[in-house]
Amino acid sequence: MKTIITLMTDFGSEDGYAGALKGRILSINPEARLHDIGHEIPPFNIAHGAYALRTYFFEYPEKTVHIAVVDPGVGSNRDGLVIRCDGRWFVGPDNGLADLILYDRTYEAFKIRTKAVSPHLVSQTFHGRDIFAPVAAALSLGQFHRDWFEPFTYKPRQARIDLGTGRIPLLCADHFGNLIFNLHHSELVGKKILKLSYKNFSTTLICPYFSAVEQGQPLFLWNSAGFLELAVNQGSAADYFNPVESEVLLSTECDEV
Amino acid sequence: MKTIITLMTDFGSEDGYAGALKGRILSINPEARLHDIGHEIPPFNIAHGAYALRTYFFEYPEKTVHIAVVDPGVGSNRDGLVIRCDGRWFVGPDNGLADLILYDRTYEAFKIRTKAVSPHLVSQTFHGRDIFAPVAAALSLGQFHRDWFEPFTYKPRQARIDLGTGRIPLLCADHFGNLIFNLHHSELVGKKILKLSYKNFSTTLICPYFSAVEQGQPLFLWNSAGFLELAVNQGSAADYFNPVESEVLLSTECDEV
Amino acid sequence: MKTIITLMTDFGSEDGYAGALKGRILSINPEARLHDIGHEIPPFNIAHGAYALRTYFFEYPEKTVHIAVVDPGVGSNRDGLVIRCDGRWFVGPDNGLADLILYDRTYEAFKIRTKAVSPHLVSQTFHGRDIFAPVAAALSLGQFHRDWFEPFTYKPRQARIDLGTGRIPLLCADHFGNLIFNLHHSELVGKKILKLSYKNFSTTLICPYFSAVEQGQPLFLWNSAGFLELAVNQGSAADYFNPVESEVLLSTECDEV
Repeated sequence: MKTIITLMTDFGSEDGYAGALKGRILSINPEARLHDIGHEIPPFNIAHGAYALRTYFFEYPEKTVHIAVVDPGVGSNRDGLVIRCDGRWFVGPDNGLADLILYDRTYEAFKIRTKAVSPHLVSQTFHGRDIFAPVAAALSLGQFHRDWFEPFTYKPRQARIDLGTGRIPLLCADHFGNLIFNLHHSELVGKKILKLSYKNFSTTLICPYFSAVEQGQPLFLWNSAGFLELAVNQGSAADYFNPVESEVLLSTECDEV
Repeated sequence: MKTIITLMTDFGSEDGYAGALKGRILSINPEARLHDIGHEIPPFNIAHGAYALRTYFFEYPEKTVHIAVVDPGVGSNRDGLVIRCDGRWFVGPDNGLADLILYDRTYEAFKIRTKAVSPHLVSQTFHGRDIFAPVAAALSLGQFHRDWFEPFTYKPRQARIDLGTGRIPLLCADHFGNLIFNLHHSELVGKKILKLSYKNFSTTLICPYFSAVEQGQPLFLWNSAGFLELAVNQGSAADYFNPVESEVLLSTECDEV
Repeated sequence: MKTIITLMTDFGSEDGYAGALKGRILSINPEARLHDIGHEIPPFNIAHGAYALRTYFFEYPEKTVHIAVVDPGVGSNRDGLVIRCDGRWFVGPDNGLADLILYDRTYEAFKIRTKAVSPHLVSQTFHGRDIFAPVAAALSLGQFHRDWFEPFTYKPRQARIDLGTGRIPLLCADHFGNLIFNLHHSELVGKKILKLSYKNFSTTLICPYFSAVEQGQPLFLWNSAGFLELAVNQGSAADYFNPVESEVLLSTECDEV
């Protein structure tokens, strides 16, 4: 079946590991249509991967199987995870990587029974190829093996806005040096933003686009994925604010600032 | 329709942005066959992207839709651009990125009417996904929506050889440190090269291949894309000539040098 | 024909060279299904590429055509090479890149007759596009042009274990800083490992997985591709042992150490 399968990993592009994962899938479902998202997620940076996943997950057609592997705990006790969300599948580690796709959606989550998928598994070091690849391949064939999966209640791990203090944690700096914070605009519906503060920069405004400020000046905006972003018009916020702080301070609906 | 669509961007490989663009295309034309060219064009480096585009544009079969996004002016007034050239399509920003495919070809150019493509566009920051993806997807389906496009006269932007002084501008240093200059061998037909000078290196020769000189020595050649290249046999010209100068000096058809 | 063709190169992701190679293939076999392995093999690092190739070569279905180009000698006298191994094809330079797929397999090797493939070849600098692409495309169409190929006896080039001294050469440091040595576990069948020594680290153990040692501690293991690997649990062996040495010392079957 010609199902679309996407792959995002921190495997890098100088080795054959992503290739091994793709080959394993194609040896099970030779007709699968594989699409690389990118294999340069900063190693072990789950928050970065979680944000990246959110930017493309829902763009793909229904039935797409999204494999995402950013997995500092491989070989430890962390579980493998399958989530069905909005008609699309997530396959990857249960470590918070899936958090940001689930904000505003209903979904079903399943632990992967590793021994059921791969009873004779020798290698402990390549779950991407040995567990996630056969799981994704089966899903792409329309096969949901009940004995491979155990329904459970997914627990998000990424820190979110602290409503008491207004502190919003940084998710990552992207390729362009934009700083992305873990606040989706849908979370502020009906609230008025009074002030945003990051290091020495304070503003009452969320701008509609980069060029709303002078070249080289910082601005906040809701980015193309709906998240709060601190950018610099035609520049890099990561450079501008170096060293980067891990939180932005938000004031809403208060009478006094 | 199973049309080939290629993608070249400066989005990097550590985020989900290229993936979002691909997902958007597949949600419109699920049968499109997407091919990544590369997403590590040096950020905002239009000359580099223009050269890269030239190296593969005509290699693909007719009807291929080539998306290219290197776009420092996103959100500003620069237009979106569609070009039909030699049976293939270019979709990207109108900023000079398309210059080098048009040297020796006939073509038709169209501005993209952004509002017609995406009437309810909110985000101002991701034209790749919100404008270029639907335009490319439509073209891949054989649909040319007249109201999306406005014919216009394309104006090249990349500096070219100054015939008076013989100065040829540098396009870029490639992955191997080869220095590529904006002169295609077809532009010198019927002319005799007397001398090429770059920093402290002068020669009367354009070599047929790298190993025509000793290992570690510099040479000029017409590279595999037909452009003037300054290379070092089994080395990097960018390192050899560091810091790099932005022009090479060419003497042709003169009686005296 | 919808044959799978994979591509691994040291062309990088900031140019259009890998794209040119893919376009050339698709202009010959428009239905080929191309899969990027990665284009960031460290430039000219054959040992690194040879290891990468081994990790995915056999994962792909039979009939897959694997193009691999890491080619410091392009333009010199080195030959182009085609190998048929376990129902899969290798296409690339004859410089040792194919060594590690052939350990424990039977295979047929052929030199490519460059002039037969491309009689009017002008450019001497892009064998990937001008020679390997048409050869791979033909193989993907089920065409084995006898006059393009000359059977010969393949000579491995990568240094292997010295059975006298027990010295095992380093192949590469991978993306995660794991150090991979040129010893496959199948080569030690029936032998007992007494000691492994690398710089100041000595052990009698090969661990089953990373977390068999404390976080931050080094360990040897047979990795997911079956090769001897020196890793650091949740860390980088390349950093831990910096500067890296090029050999590990192995004692087997001795009565005394």
